[in-house]
Amino acid sequence: MMRALLILAHGSRREASNDEVRELARMLASRLDLSFSRVDAAFLELTSPTIDQAVDEAVAAGATQVVLYPYFLAAGRHVAEDIPAIVDRCRSRHPAVAIDLRPYLGASPALIELLINELSA
Amino acid sequence: MMRALLILAHGSRREASNDEVRELARMLASRLDLSFSRVDAAFLELTSPTIDQAVDEAVAAGATQVVLYPYFLAAGRHVAEDIPAIVDRCRSRHPAVAIDLRPYLGASPALIELLINELSA
Repeated sequence: MMRALLILAHGSRREASNDEVRELARMLASRLDLSFSRVDAAFLELTSPTIDQAVDEAVAAGATQVVLYPYFLAAGRHVAEDIPAIVDRCRSRHPAVAIDLRPYLGASPALIELLINELSA
Repeated sequence: MMRALLILAHGSRREASNDEVRELARMLASRLDLSFSRVDAAFLELTSPTIDQAVDEAVAAGATQVVLYPYFLAAGRHVAEDIPAIVDRCRSRHPAVAIDLRPYLGASPALIELLINELSA
């Protein structure tokens, strides 16, 4: 089984912001190399690759499982509606691939502990 | 010295998303009560209170220091330009109050460790 991880972000008109997400994907790739063969950033809008493009690329590279991690803090329309619709579309296009949409970052109970640490300092 | 903390978020058309940020502020208020007399959410757009309104309210309630924490993952235009401009405006309006803009969440080195934990599970 070849597993690919996609970090899903909104995308910005400010390219330095998109590069931050790409750099995060690179750092995660080096730290998660036992769990994932590849880790890439993918974007909802304003830059590329789009989520559709990134899923297609991972599958073309041989991925049999693609894990999608929404790098979002709150469940706005993007997390609640747009991303699930894109995932449905990707699953239709790649019925033999396990496409696994994880809970978004903001839903993580560990996040509040991080905030407490940052803010009580 | 009375310290107030504002959690700055983007704001969404989806009210459940704004409520998530407000709920986060309430959780932080109960956990950070030794550091801050009040913790509130404030928004850039699409909902209220705005950051200007929330700063004015904290000052009216007696805050002598207002800590602003950008609850954002990447330094897009909102973090890089819009929030600093609002902070300048608030400082001009309240020259006797210490208005302290913290680094945004995405800049925290602890965040990558949280992601590693979430994603290697």
